[in-house]
Amino acid sequence: MNATLAGDVVRAGKQARERFYDARGYGRPVDGGALELAPVEAAHLLYRGDLDDVDGMDVGEFLASAAVSEVAFFVYKDLRDRGFYLSRPAPTDGRGRQQVSGEERPANREAGDDRPVDFEVYPRGKGPWDDEVAYRVCVVSERESVAAESLGDCVLAVVDEESEITYLETGRPEVSGTSASEIPPVEGSLLADRVLCWDPPAELYERGFYGQRLDDQDDGDGAVQLSLVEAAHLAREGVLSVDGGADAVRERGRDVEGDRFDRRLRVYERLRADGMVPKTGFKFGADFRTYADVESVDDLGHSELLVRVLPADHVFEPRDLALDVRLAHGVRKTMVFALVDEEDVSWVDVERLTP
Amino acid sequence: MNATLAGDVVRAGKQARERFYDARGYGRPVDGGALELAPVEAAHLLYRGDLDDVDGMDVGEFLASAAVSEVAFFVYKDLRDRGFYLSRPAPTDGRGRQQVSGEERPANREAGDDRPVDFEVYPRGKGPWDDEVAYRVCVVSERESVAAESLGDCVLAVVDEESEITYLETGRPEVSGTSASEIPPVEGSLLADRVLCWDPPAELYERGFYGQRLDDQDDGDGAVQLSLVEAAHLAREGVLSVDGGADAVRERGRDVEGDRFDRRLRVYERLRADGMVPKTGFKFGADFRTYADVESVDDLGHSELLVRVLPADHVFEPRDLALDVRLAHGVRKTMVFALVDEEDVSWVDVERLTP
Repeated sequence: MNATLAGDVVRAGKQARERFYDARGYGRPVDGGALELAPVEAAHLLYRGDLDDVDGMDVGEFLASAAVSEVAFFVYKDLRDRGFYLSRPAPTDGRGRQQVSGEERPANREAGDDRPVDFEVYPRGKGPWDDEVAYRVCVVSERESVAAESLGDCVLAVVDEESEITYLETGRPEVSGTSASEIPPVEGSLLADRVLCWDPPAELYERGFYGQRLDDQDDGDGAVQLSLVEAAHLAREGVLSVDGGADAVRERGRDVEGDRFDRRLRVYERLRADGMVPKTGFKFGADFRTYADVESVDDLGHSELLVRVLPADHVFEPRDLALDVRLAHGVRKTMVFALVDEEDVSWVDVERLTP
Repeated sequence: MNATLAGDVVRAGKQARERFYDARGYGRPVDGGALELAPVEAAHLLYRGDLDDVDGMDVGEFLASAAVSEVAFFVYKDLRDRGFYLSRPAPTDGRGRQQVSGEERPANREAGDDRPVDFEVYPRGKGPWDDEVAYRVCVVSERESVAAESLGDCVLAVVDEESEITYLETGRPEVSGTSASEIPPVEGSLLADRVLCWDPPAELYERGFYGQRLDDQDDGDGAVQLSLVEAAHLAREGVLSVDGGADAVRERGRDVEGDRFDRRLRVYERLRADGMVPKTGFKFGADFRTYADVESVDDLGHSELLVRVLPADHVFEPRDLALDVRLAHGVRKTMVFALVDEEDVSWVDVERLTP
């Protein structure tokens, strides 16, 4: 059986419709009883030997042509091998959100736009006849960059240079908790890169989980060191007195890390306002790790999230995403990106998925 | 007991020498029976209450002054708490390599210079009287950047914003193995981002561990896809025939990732030449994972190294180093950086250390 390329689809006849669509969920029936296949579906049928050729091209020639994206093919094949039926989404709105298969993707999407979906994957045992979608998959090559703001509603299928596929599920989590504490006034001394409180109230560390004891063995009211973000927050809240006040601390922070300090402070304050306790995520290569329900440091659970603070217009290399998500998974935490723009902080979480 | 600041040292009298140097390894005896302390040693003695003041300053005032670096103090204290004696290295050569304590570090060291050592740490139970050094420690704040070329001979003590310390031991490993294979000629077809070999000799994948099978279930002689680095290497070696030859593959690689492709190719070829099999490290956020002793893919062990390829003048954020090293540790591999300059590839490995 053979088929013909017509624009960005492949057309085949009525017999193809019966064999491929009715029985196995390939393509989309069109008027007159014929079948319209996405190029990637046609490539898969060629690869399996179900189609003999498309305009005379065998699978090798077809994959080497501009008609089909090899990375989309690898993902399509992988999901088929895992027992799923899947389709290119039907063009539904006028916003250019319809299917793309690699080379057809518009080069300049607006920031903030969601990624266009390459495949709608149906639950196992279901197909295009049913009205249910398990995953909306966006295909990216390891070398393509990914705008942070385009994430949140899709599964990224990243194809690495050896054609292995990593699935990353992205979402928009609620980030909030129940931690809260009243801290009595405290005095601190501003050093180069932190604030030292020589005689703090016990609540500072024990209830608020602010800072670190200077001496680990100390379990009483010993000196506590605050990071500059913690200190800036506490000074703004009127809890911490320090020479020069909150402004001096913020200036020091900006000297030390520029704009990044302001972004981190905004995320820190947002987390505290929403009942989360943020602590440094340095050992995990992140900005913060967070605790949702701190009542006292004596019975602290594990931290649940790793937070990386980014400007909202950040663009990821997929490799960096893979690194963050893999590390978070290894320490049983969820990787969350805090995207900061002029007005707000928005959250995107990313987790590995095995479809 | 009190002491006086004199330039970048703190001086104390004969009694101090007996109590602090002879009994506990602080400072350096000088002519006339007095004791010369590094500011960080004086800060620690102040903190412990062994010194009453330095020029009238108590520990809080002394730490807030420019005389001593707080991050150096935290590291000094931590190593003392762990039971080590340690000293600032004596100035020994004319190259400006002598001791530094944070603010004294020269701002513009030449690239390729080793990091100046802040502390020589003696083995537990030994001290400055003995002639043995366990670690040469360089102190950095989380916010300081670290030139890749300055690593290889020291332990980095990174102090994060909450004053937790991560010790990273850096070395210059031998990177070589025993993998070798003879591959018969193979033909491939160049796609957008890889090369497909539809009918390769079995040795390509099975002995050389080049590429990936298009079909995992396939255990015979099915199609193999090669990454562009693998294909460029095999084409140069005369093993792979592809339209346009090695140059076409390299051009494609450069289109896809610019200079980075050339750097990765050089590291790939160096690894292959030295008996290592490099495969993609994408899932670990690295460039390559490597296998030192591949005889056949059927009994492949675990990969031992994660390799990140960097230009030799790369400068690390300590957070990125922490991320790489933590991830590698979690998957029981060693993190190795391949530093590529015009002439050569040099290797630096970094591992977490608990002193």
